[in-house]
Amino acid sequence: MKKKNIVTIGGGTGSFTLLSGLKNYPVNISAIVSMADDGGSTGVLRDELGVLPPGDVRQCLVALSDSSDTLRELMSYRFGGKNLKGHSFGNLFLSALEKISKNFSKGVEEAGKILNVKGEVIPVSEDDMRLLIRLKNGKVLKGETELDHSKEIRKIGIREISLAKKAKAFETALDRIKKADFIIIGPGDLYGSLLPNLLVSSIGKAIRKAKAKVVLNCNLTNRKGQTDGYDLDKYVEQLNKYLGEGRINFVTYNTKKPPKSLIRKYEKKEGRGALVKFDEKAKIERSYKVVKADLLSLEIVERSKSDAIASTRSFIRHDSRKLSKVIMMISEIGSYENLIKDIV
Amino acid sequence: MKKKNIVTIGGGTGSFTLLSGLKNYPVNISAIVSMADDGGSTGVLRDELGVLPPGDVRQCLVALSDSSDTLRELMSYRFGGKNLKGHSFGNLFLSALEKISKNFSKGVEEAGKILNVKGEVIPVSEDDMRLLIRLKNGKVLKGETELDHSKEIRKIGIREISLAKKAKAFETALDRIKKADFIIIGPGDLYGSLLPNLLVSSIGKAIRKAKAKVVLNCNLTNRKGQTDGYDLDKYVEQLNKYLGEGRINFVTYNTKKPPKSLIRKYEKKEGRGALVKFDEKAKIERSYKVVKADLLSLEIVERSKSDAIASTRSFIRHDSRKLSKVIMMISEIGSYENLIKDIV
Repeated sequence: MKKKNIVTIGGGTGSFTLLSGLKNYPVNISAIVSMADDGGSTGVLRDELGVLPPGDVRQCLVALSDSSDTLRELMSYRFGGKNLKGHSFGNLFLSALEKISKNFSKGVEEAGKILNVKGEVIPVSEDDMRLLIRLKNGKVLKGETELDHSKEIRKIGIREISLAKKAKAFETALDRIKKADFIIIGPGDLYGSLLPNLLVSSIGKAIRKAKAKVVLNCNLTNRKGQTDGYDLDKYVEQLNKYLGEGRINFVTYNTKKPPKSLIRKYEKKEGRGALVKFDEKAKIERSYKVVKADLLSLEIVERSKSDAIASTRSFIRHDSRKLSKVIMMISEIGSYENLIKDIV
Repeated sequence: MKKKNIVTIGGGTGSFTLLSGLKNYPVNISAIVSMADDGGSTGVLRDELGVLPPGDVRQCLVALSDSSDTLRELMSYRFGGKNLKGHSFGNLFLSALEKISKNFSKGVEEAGKILNVKGEVIPVSEDDMRLLIRLKNGKVLKGETELDHSKEIRKIGIREISLAKKAKAFETALDRIKKADFIIIGPGDLYGSLLPNLLVSSIGKAIRKAKAKVVLNCNLTNRKGQTDGYDLDKYVEQLNKYLGEGRINFVTYNTKKPPKSLIRKYEKKEGRGALVKFDEKAKIERSYKVVKADLLSLEIVERSKSDAIASTRSFIRHDSRKLSKVIMMISEIGSYENLIKDIV
């Protein structure tokens, strides 16, 4: 049987989790990654070397890598020292490869070979993407890093985001979307990881026209000032603005409750609606099937060396194996979708 | 037939040239490398991160690497930018691996795997080696980097060098010397690359006791204030202080004259005796055979990307293929040495 073509869309920890699991299945994986990151080590490299942001790409490469533990660990290693402090080795690796290859995507391709990556990692655009964040009071902030650090966002809230300059989709990304059997969106921050991909205008169009089934992995938690109190349907509604009504075919939703102490911790930081709810009985007509399953990671604070990035940033998070298993299940039944009454 | 065990001793460009050629022959290569470097990117990393000096090791790894051109090029890539400026990617690579492996030699071993190295690269010591350079006027300078930059050295000249603190030989280095069939010393700066290895006291002793034949690749040029006007026999005499009289069995000597313009350039910089001579008729008794051959590189300024380090530092230099061919020839006849009257 022909292997299925699976395209994932996202960036950051969410993609890392999803891809770490998916790579164990016999499928063709193309991970499309947002290029709007400009914080931390990535931001410094963008500014100082004029390279494209390596951070999200690096995480996806590590997730898909079949190389030695040491090499994977190396990619996530962060330097100390005065001038190198905070730089991730993997970011330097990608930036140097971009410089040598004279081209970011070519550099990422070379990195894929060196890291023995299963599948491919594809930047959504080769243009210099910078996020503009318009707050509800009209003020505009610049740079994705604000999403993590701005107190104003938390207080006032976001009205919408856009790109400072129009970005052209990377051809390979469009090609893979066209050929995909399944397009998996998320998990990942709505404004930080998901929408930046869809702001690249022809990406949304390509997904709308694609023959693929589209799956949304609904986030587990919300972020204050960004997705306050969002429930599953609200996430779909937001994405539909870019994908068009009815384009999402399946939404995965976690049913396993995290420990109370963790919920309290999140609510303290992200507000009352920190946990993403699903109102099954809401009086709306859904054009998507909701797949409910236990998707919760039980490793509370597993600081394993090789995925240190992923495990220290998020505590209520998806379990890589559970999530990929459900995705594979959907990819099996996806073709018979119309025969199934409801998966809820 | 059992593969011969060849140990090379040196550091820097000389080792790079020798190893690049040797790796194409069916022999077991162990490259023992000086750990006294403290200039440039290497020096900054030693100071800021407290790592051992990666520079010389990196060059040897690249020389022996059978990985893709891109990966080799990457290892020699130097960053621009404000804080990263001048750092070699390969040095950062080795420093990060040292940090992850908690041990420099272990890190070098891991690097060897990642770079698909033919043979092995072995630091001469795992201790923090710092060179003390005593000038002829009694003044003492600290740090190998002075050899390249001090005007005082050029003017006054070196009396002797030593280590600021005694360094213990790395066990693996001693083991490989013991098992070697051939030990190849140089080419390389006497004070910068060769003697720092022999200052690690038990290394000299191990070579003295070893069953191996010892070959010295005589340098092509001298350095002002360091080896002014040295001829072949003088190099042997200097090394004999550490190796003991009669320990060197063969010395290779280049007979091909470099272009006059290049000689003039060297004489302008390094003084009248810039070219290393061989006084065949000198009234001395030699306990070593001199192998004369055309060993000169004809690539005048080949700035190929992947050995940019090697090609930009030195202009009159050994040809990697010619040199390794002669070494292999010696390794064949070496066993019949006593049957041969003279190779001069």
